[in-house]
Amino acid sequence: MASLEDIAVSAGINLLSALMFLLAFAFLRLQPINDRVYFPKWYLKGTRESPRSAGTLVKKFVNLNFKTYLKFLNWMPAALKMPEAELIDHAGLDSAIYLRIYLLGLKIFVPIALLAFAVLVPVNVTGKSLKSKTDLVYSNIDKLSISNVPAGSLRFIAHIVMAYVVTIWTFYILYKEYEIISSMRLRFLASEKRRPDQFTVLVRNIPPKDDESVSKHVEQFFRSNHPDHYLTHQLVYDAGTLAKFVQERKKLENWLTYYQTKYERNPKKKPMIRTCCWGLCGSSVDAINYYTAKIKDLSEQEAGEREKVMSDKIAIVPAAFVSFRSRWGAAVCAQTQQTDNPTVWLTEWAPEPRDVHWNNLAVPYVGLTVSKLVMAVALFFLTFFFMIPIAFVQSLASIEGIQQVLPFLEPVIENEAVKALIQGFLPGIALKIFLILLPSVLMTMSKAEGFTSLSSLDRRSAGKYYLFLLVNVFFGSIITGAAFEQLHSFLNKAPTEIPKTVGVAIPMKASFFITYIMVDGWAGVAAEILRLYPLAIFHLKNTFLVKTDQDREQAMDPGSMKFSQSEPQIQLYFLLGLVYAAVTPVLLPFIIIFFGFSYLVYRHQIINVYDQKYESGATFWPDVHRRIIIGLIISQLLLMGLLSTKGAARSTPLLLVLPVLTIWFHRFCKGRFESAFVAFPLQNARKKDKLDGATEPDFNLKEYLQNAYVHPVFQDDSMKLPTLDDEEYNKLKDIEKSSFENDVEDTLDTITDAFEMVTDAWEDMDDERRHALGV
Amino acid sequence: MASLEDIAVSAGINLLSALMFLLAFAFLRLQPINDRVYFPKWYLKGTRESPRSAGTLVKKFVNLNFKTYLKFLNWMPAALKMPEAELIDHAGLDSAIYLRIYLLGLKIFVPIALLAFAVLVPVNVTGKSLKSKTDLVYSNIDKLSISNVPAGSLRFIAHIVMAYVVTIWTFYILYKEYEIISSMRLRFLASEKRRPDQFTVLVRNIPPKDDESVSKHVEQFFRSNHPDHYLTHQLVYDAGTLAKFVQERKKLENWLTYYQTKYERNPKKKPMIRTCCWGLCGSSVDAINYYTAKIKDLSEQEAGEREKVMSDKIAIVPAAFVSFRSRWGAAVCAQTQQTDNPTVWLTEWAPEPRDVHWNNLAVPYVGLTVSKLVMAVALFFLTFFFMIPIAFVQSLASIEGIQQVLPFLEPVIENEAVKALIQGFLPGIALKIFLILLPSVLMTMSKAEGFTSLSSLDRRSAGKYYLFLLVNVFFGSIITGAAFEQLHSFLNKAPTEIPKTVGVAIPMKASFFITYIMVDGWAGVAAEILRLYPLAIFHLKNTFLVKTDQDREQAMDPGSMKFSQSEPQIQLYFLLGLVYAAVTPVLLPFIIIFFGFSYLVYRHQIINVYDQKYESGATFWPDVHRRIIIGLIISQLLLMGLLSTKGAARSTPLLLVLPVLTIWFHRFCKGRFESAFVAFPLQNARKKDKLDGATEPDFNLKEYLQNAYVHPVFQDDSMKLPTLDDEEYNKLKDIEKSSFENDVEDTLDTITDAFEMVTDAWEDMDDERRHALGV
Repeated sequence: MASLEDIAVSAGINLLSALMFLLAFAFLRLQPINDRVYFPKWYLKGTRESPRSAGTLVKKFVNLNFKTYLKFLNWMPAALKMPEAELIDHAGLDSAIYLRIYLLGLKIFVPIALLAFAVLVPVNVTGKSLKSKTDLVYSNIDKLSISNVPAGSLRFIAHIVMAYVVTIWTFYILYKEYEIISSMRLRFLASEKRRPDQFTVLVRNIPPKDDESVSKHVEQFFRSNHPDHYLTHQLVYDAGTLAKFVQERKKLENWLTYYQTKYERNPKKKPMIRTCCWGLCGSSVDAINYYTAKIKDLSEQEAGEREKVMSDKIAIVPAAFVSFRSRWGAAVCAQTQQTDNPTVWLTEWAPEPRDVHWNNLAVPYVGLTVSKLVMAVALFFLTFFFMIPIAFVQSLASIEGIQQVLPFLEPVIENEAVKALIQGFLPGIALKIFLILLPSVLMTMSKAEGFTSLSSLDRRSAGKYYLFLLVNVFFGSIITGAAFEQLHSFLNKAPTEIPKTVGVAIPMKASFFITYIMVDGWAGVAAEILRLYPLAIFHLKNTFLVKTDQDREQAMDPGSMKFSQSEPQIQLYFLLGLVYAAVTPVLLPFIIIFFGFSYLVYRHQIINVYDQKYESGATFWPDVHRRIIIGLIISQLLLMGLLSTKGAARSTPLLLVLPVLTIWFHRFCKGRFESAFVAFPLQNARKKDKLDGATEPDFNLKEYLQNAYVHPVFQDDSMKLPTLDDEEYNKLKDIEKSSFENDVEDTLDTITDAFEMVTDAWEDMDDERRHALGV
Repeated sequence: MASLEDIAVSAGINLLSALMFLLAFAFLRLQPINDRVYFPKWYLKGTRESPRSAGTLVKKFVNLNFKTYLKFLNWMPAALKMPEAELIDHAGLDSAIYLRIYLLGLKIFVPIALLAFAVLVPVNVTGKSLKSKTDLVYSNIDKLSISNVPAGSLRFIAHIVMAYVVTIWTFYILYKEYEIISSMRLRFLASEKRRPDQFTVLVRNIPPKDDESVSKHVEQFFRSNHPDHYLTHQLVYDAGTLAKFVQERKKLENWLTYYQTKYERNPKKKPMIRTCCWGLCGSSVDAINYYTAKIKDLSEQEAGEREKVMSDKIAIVPAAFVSFRSRWGAAVCAQTQQTDNPTVWLTEWAPEPRDVHWNNLAVPYVGLTVSKLVMAVALFFLTFFFMIPIAFVQSLASIEGIQQVLPFLEPVIENEAVKALIQGFLPGIALKIFLILLPSVLMTMSKAEGFTSLSSLDRRSAGKYYLFLLVNVFFGSIITGAAFEQLHSFLNKAPTEIPKTVGVAIPMKASFFITYIMVDGWAGVAAEILRLYPLAIFHLKNTFLVKTDQDREQAMDPGSMKFSQSEPQIQLYFLLGLVYAAVTPVLLPFIIIFFGFSYLVYRHQIINVYDQKYESGATFWPDVHRRIIIGLIISQLLLMGLLSTKGAARSTPLLLVLPVLTIWFHRFCKGRFESAFVAFPLQNARKKDKLDGATEPDFNLKEYLQNAYVHPVFQDDSMKLPTLDDEEYNKLKDIEKSSFENDVEDTLDTITDAFEMVTDAWEDMDDERRHALGV
């Protein structure tokens, strides 16, 4: 067990590494060449111009003003300066509310930590249970924790009271926060200007009708059932194949540009490539000709497909976006059931246009329920049994495994240096790759469940990831052994034994989790601000692909808040804080530093970097709330288990009250606030309708809505939207990217593309160098 | 353990007692004097007239036509004759669908029983495991059960296949049934004539507004948010106290009538009563004067209260029935959220007028969530710990207990006969009284949860009662010991151990459950048809209270289907059938006889006796479906546990598929059908609106709805409803009765009243006899 000194050293190291990240960031962000990596949000907003366009050549790339380096930490107060209202305006409600999760952590844990250090730590320190057993190895941390209190002591009253205080304080803060956020959401929705989704309902599972087109059927149905409110509708085309063609073409165009640039820079040498096996074998051909021909080919295919989609009846999927004359009409249609059969004519609020996940609009009802079942089973196996295939891959990836599968590599492997590398590197890499790919895998699983908006996909994936973290990081760290072994042992234990088994191990793992918080939390957040991966990609693209300013605009990757990944991680810290609040309060300051530091960093990133993919109006808050409640219940059960092994079993009924109260509190909050995140009240719709009617009585709503929901591939070239303003048009163009980029395939694609580009650049380094510097 | 012969004897005895009940019924129902007990439904419908009005004196009381006695079983085919459509028309959809539960039992278990006897019984019989151990006591029933198959035998494949067949067959039948019933419900709703609740929405939690009356506030709110649809509204008055006065007055009037009748019959002796302690002590006064004075008193109080309610603002509760111009408007309002705050302006479909539970309309949101929490905790303790107070009462009710508490009774108790009676009788009586009162207790608990309609109260109570039966009858019989002991041992066992512990005991309890089915099921149903309690009460009232034909009408107690009690009991039989289908199929025929016999009896009762209190359109079906699913899952888990102890643990994964599939099936059905029982689709509303508009364009809807939802106490005397037809008016009058009569208090009241009346009659027997015969 780590002593206080070990922890201090570890904290020092991690603080130092975090500081180094911050220093690197402070240095890099001041270089004009990196401006588009660290301030893309402002470029997208149009308020910042490329620094390259002014000043001397050197100044374009390197910041020589040394004064600025002295104030290298001044991004921190800058990040805090922007008031919340402006932040909502600047980056949307989702981002602003997301930041409030970190603040929530501070609000919950700072008072609890103060109280714990004032009361609980003295109670623990003077417990003297550990001093008496001099033969046991114990650390200073344990002396500050509940372990130091002898079994059966009356001092446990303090811990029980603390559990009550933690619970009630958390209730209070959670309730306040839910109240504030739901009112923020309602205010946000009320203050928004006219948007297509306010008038539109997504209708799915339109039943087939032989003698009529889908369009007529939809119109007839809504004209008859919402006669006073129906306005227009838009059909949905199955443009998945077409979108793939478009994407493929863009990739090829990138390569073409790359080789053209290369040729321009070095006109003596025609760039050649091999056509098979990722450029490893096959005949060598002229790269420019090759790609030009391929693009031409693909463009023809694309045009054919486009023709087919537009003319073929089969390409029309049984879903439509139906728009109404008023928000009231849309609110009514979205919240009511249309026909006897609840599996057809399903209506729900349309997501905003850029939030639509187009591929899922056509999934039929039975298919959906089946795939939900399959995904639930898959999630179970993924969570509990993921170690089995990885262990298998690891066994394959050993020296012997490689020798067996690829015998011709034997001479290479026999080299001592290579052997050491493989042995040190390979076993871990399978797990690492799995963990990197996991969020994408979970996202793909969520997509299979048929959600129709990106925001719901994000929320759903976050739920899956939280389960994974809970089982494999939290419980997995406390009880050693793979998850499926835990599962097996838990199934064979009494339900009352489980909190005991886990609870007993809790105080012993405090130092482990402190280290975890520092490595994963502190250093992870500091790495986030450095944006190493986007930095590298940007400079690669900038060097090889960028010709015009528009290209540079596209090379910029602002990224976005990865809610599906980072929210579950925050929840892990909430869980740790709640669990250790009454057990080992020493852990709390580390969590508080994490929340505070993250708040700073993410506020900076949201202001300067991230470009949100969609705006859901904080619909994720009920999930955040629910998971904190889950953490609270887990902490209560574990404390109960721990105390019952410490000779304080009589406290069980007292502590049993807490989870019951917590569940009740959850239901209470759910009833009180959740509908603000689900439904759109008629009163508010009416108010906005009236306001609109008063201010713009002659607005042509039908024209405004006509093309609001058109699949993004149809908007690329010919069909310019008549009514959407430019900002909205740009957002629409992003959809296609965002709705595909999260797939595993694409993640791999990006990586291999970058890899290819780098190796290619490496080969040509000599030729390139002078040109690159001479541009 | 009981042998086959024991079972046969027991079956014989029970069949005989059932037969005797049936014979008694056949005899009693033919007597004209009992006509109103056995055919009240027809009297209420107005198609049957009192047989007393015609024929000779004797013939009015006794049936002397001996031919009719020969066909004493002809009620059975008669009960089956009425086609279902006519039955729905005659007794409502609720009753017709309720009967289908019994049919469902037959549909599920008859084919399974045939298959089990063809396949499983031979497999078990030839298992020969029990023959080898001659020292063990085993019965013939066990030889037919899974106990006869040796551990680890391949024969268990047959049982696993049987479990799959049972599951899939049940799925099929349940799915079909759900489909049929939801379409029946929709057809029923579509074919109904105009009813107030189709146009009306119940609005609760109307927020207070200082400067405006509730009525104005409601009107303004709905005029502004549903401008095209709002028609009118009715306020709800807090008339609970008034209703109590009315009820009390009626009771006193009954007593007055009783003493007046007595005095008329025996004018020599003025009836006297004592005024304290249930007539035990106090001064003796003239009964007629006493009651006349009391009634006068109460009438004045009642008038004052009536005045107060009508004029006082405080008596207006923050709830209202809001009516719309069209069904479409009501459907929209019922299904949507009205304001930001989901705890005010709550809208839901109004129950039909006679289904309203008036007392709960005013409960505020926070109060509701708190009382739900309290009731959940109370239900838990009631289910698991009810034996503790009963054991305490039992200990008090022993000879020694009585001697301690009431020492002056010692001489009486010392009498041997009395002692034997007390010792044999008292210990059981506390439990019996508890079990008799239990449904009323559960109903009171459900009322505290704030449901606003009698039908939802019934459904809710049924759920509670089912839990009680499941824990205390099913699991309680399998594992001996009180429920809280079971709970304790289950909490200390691994989750995988529980199915094993219970599963192992399953085959051993087969003979017990067979006896249970015969005693509780067969004999219970036969007793139901005899209606002993209503028979006694009717004749009591008829003798002492009835003067006019109208009185006789009121003395008639048709009763109604007690859904909250009988549905959970049926579910117990479903559970038993599913559990034993693959284990001891010999039990199935007994269950089949129960279902068949019950179907007959209840069909007869529904046609001839019961008068439904409300019509909910079979909204209870999702509950029925869900509970059968729960039974199915329990049966699968128990079979899994049983097989894993029989050396067939490898079958566990195979059987684990079944509960997962079952849960999925449940969710599938829920998504597919449940909304038909919750929502009212807009399309259907529109259709009916259009039809109405076409057939009766000039109908004055406002006038029709004006007084549809008035608290029943206001309809008693002065305020005659202008637009409701007489049938509906009569139904309204029943509300008051039904909304109070189920309380524990009232149950006790009825019993004590009857008891008093009988004792009083007993005292006066000599005086009475000649008069009673001479009337």
